[in-house]
Amino acid sequence: MSRLVTITGAAGFVGSRLVDALLAHPALGDAEFRLVDMQMTDRQDDRVRWLTGDISDDRLIQEMTDGADLVFHLAAALGGTAESDPAAGRRNNVEAPLRMLEALRAAGSCPRFVFASSIAVFGPPLPKDQVDDLTWPLPTMVYGAHKLMIEGAVEQYSARSWIDGIALRLPGIVARPRADARLKSAFLNRLFYAVADGEEITLPVSADGASWLLSVAACVDAFVHAGLLPRGALGRRRTLTLPAQRVRIGDLVEALHRRFPESRARVSFEPDPELDTQFAAYPPLVTELGDSLGFVHDGSLDRLVERAIQPRSG
Amino acid sequence: MSRLVTITGAAGFVGSRLVDALLAHPALGDAEFRLVDMQMTDRQDDRVRWLTGDISDDRLIQEMTDGADLVFHLAAALGGTAESDPAAGRRNNVEAPLRMLEALRAAGSCPRFVFASSIAVFGPPLPKDQVDDLTWPLPTMVYGAHKLMIEGAVEQYSARSWIDGIALRLPGIVARPRADARLKSAFLNRLFYAVADGEEITLPVSADGASWLLSVAACVDAFVHAGLLPRGALGRRRTLTLPAQRVRIGDLVEALHRRFPESRARVSFEPDPELDTQFAAYPPLVTELGDSLGFVHDGSLDRLVERAIQPRSG
Repeated sequence: MSRLVTITGAAGFVGSRLVDALLAHPALGDAEFRLVDMQMTDRQDDRVRWLTGDISDDRLIQEMTDGADLVFHLAAALGGTAESDPAAGRRNNVEAPLRMLEALRAAGSCPRFVFASSIAVFGPPLPKDQVDDLTWPLPTMVYGAHKLMIEGAVEQYSARSWIDGIALRLPGIVARPRADARLKSAFLNRLFYAVADGEEITLPVSADGASWLLSVAACVDAFVHAGLLPRGALGRRRTLTLPAQRVRIGDLVEALHRRFPESRARVSFEPDPELDTQFAAYPPLVTELGDSLGFVHDGSLDRLVERAIQPRSG
Repeated sequence: MSRLVTITGAAGFVGSRLVDALLAHPALGDAEFRLVDMQMTDRQDDRVRWLTGDISDDRLIQEMTDGADLVFHLAAALGGTAESDPAAGRRNNVEAPLRMLEALRAAGSCPRFVFASSIAVFGPPLPKDQVDDLTWPLPTMVYGAHKLMIEGAVEQYSARSWIDGIALRLPGIVARPRADARLKSAFLNRLFYAVADGEEITLPVSADGASWLLSVAACVDAFVHAGLLPRGALGRRRTLTLPAQRVRIGDLVEALHRRFPESRARVSFEPDPELDTQFAAYPPLVTELGDSLGFVHDGSLDRLVERAIQPRSG
């Protein structure tokens, strides 16, 4: 019997690239794919079926979970929405995943469930000294609290073998095209494209600031790895922070100039103390659990830059 | 302006005794009290107003939060319901408290919010070596996962000063009258009344088993203490395990016989390995954060027994 794979948020920045990777993966050659999002994108593949609509809609939840043996749950109301529209935030980020989990439990097949969590469970700001697998999560944003809640449900459902779950805490994933300039946290994404396109950019953080970064390609690799880890590979604890590079912002600018040597982009720094603290004061990151399960970051800054801006294959 | 105090679960085992204590508290002499539960109990006190109904009802949530400057949230769908009726569990244990928090945020007065969490966030079974403030919560029951989720929300709302929250993880609270004998975990509560009433009881755990216990009187003291801690007393972290005594079951039986020397109760042990592991293999408990904030347990086993069965004052 062929595998049935569900991806929510399948039209998004990470989700669309994850679908590319899954469709191309040799282990999933005869799998069927259900792609869930608000709107569909064009996909030339017979194995794909789109389910469009509101992630919290009961019928949609039933359709997306029915018979699934591998689920990637990436869809969410993002930070700004979760803060400004509490009802929508709860519905999409808490109620919908809980009902998805309940539908999967009722089905009784204990599918692998890969949940996109976030380092937003730790802040901002992040703890000053270090973040590791024992760091106590203390979210300050509604979005981070929602992610933390569903981590707890993934742990509990996995403990009962209702699902075979894993929650991945994502660091900054680069480089999101057309990152919303109004978002205070978007400057790092915009930096990549500014240098690539030879545009001027002023960064609101200092060159000596540091952030945890993972290329979108490495992030997709991590999701695929999580989805295909053999049954039994995961122990009692199902939540882990993805390995990421701690990158000095000044070093990132230099690496981008190495990558785009012809670029006439001018990058300047006008540090805003608040943004510097929130988004460029990341402490050392220790990811023993993720390391032990074979998750890896890009390996080098040049490779991170190389993989952060890539043409889509799909 | 007099204080406005809301207690949910106000007709319950802990809640009704908490209401007694709050009504008698000198600091709350001119406070008004809103008691919330499915049904009201008789209260001869002009300061009391009952709000009865479903805790997840929007109008009830509005009424119970409107103008509140001190909220004790004890109401919940208990373990069995949360497992057997997932929709009711989610509605009462996740959706209702999140909407209460949202209503309190919208009101903008940053009230003290005391949330009844549970050591169910750690198991069962509990970790073998020790439980302390850094123990990673890994719930196995739906109820424990729900408690963990709301702890996260209390942390996040407090970090933003939307509430001044504190979540208390309750150990076994004794002695619940008429504890449901069908509940596997009810044997410890039934033990107290069996010895008091001179009845026979067979315990499904070994005499050398150990459990964390707190008398209901000490539990009520802890809630009052949490409610009246001065503003600013609580740091960044708002979730703590209440100090409790780690009691050897055989010692508890002896203490009960000291307390009720006339009792002809015969207590025997027929350990069930599964129940022994789940409910009588509690490791040492370290509660530094709770200790530092002035929370205390009963102090001695004899005092625990003394305070576990007390006539109601209200």
